[in-house]
Amino acid sequence: MKARVTVTLKAGVLDPQGQAIEGSLKGLGFPGVASVRQGKVFDLVLEGTDVEAARSQLTSMCEKLLANTVIENFAIEISN
Amino acid sequence: MKARVTVTLKAGVLDPQGQAIEGSLKGLGFPGVASVRQGKVFDLVLEGTDVEAARSQLTSMCEKLLANTVIENFAIEISN
Repeated sequence: MKARVTVTLKAGVLDPQGQAIEGSLKGLGFPGVASVRQGKVFDLVLEGTDVEAARSQLTSMCEKLLANTVIENFAIEISN
Repeated sequence: MKARVTVTLKAGVLDPQGQAIEGSLKGLGFPGVASVRQGKVFDLVLEGTDVEAARSQLTSMCEKLLANTVIENFAIEISN
């Protein structure tokens, strides 16, 4: 089973890396960029076929390792 | 207009960071993890309403700055 976990900064959390990218894009000639926020994506391959068990495991992985839930949100997508 | 750009390593490119995460997940008690690959996600807010123009600009941004197309793939999703 394949899963994608997307971790993004919560609204209101400063993102200096995103701001730097925004500045660079403007410098490269893309004036229409109003905002950039950077996040992380994890593509996992999991053994087993139980989607609900996988979702529960992935939530636990996010809470323990993949995301810092104080400042980050996570989203889980599972595809067979 | 909002857009999400997802940058992932091409197949065959080594991902030591993903391997480290895979090892950590196994150490934390998730034995069913067969593989982890890490990528990046950029959430952009763009001015303008022309979806095709935005897609063209985003492709150019990826080729120039957001992705290293030698080793990375990128995917663009646009939502109004």
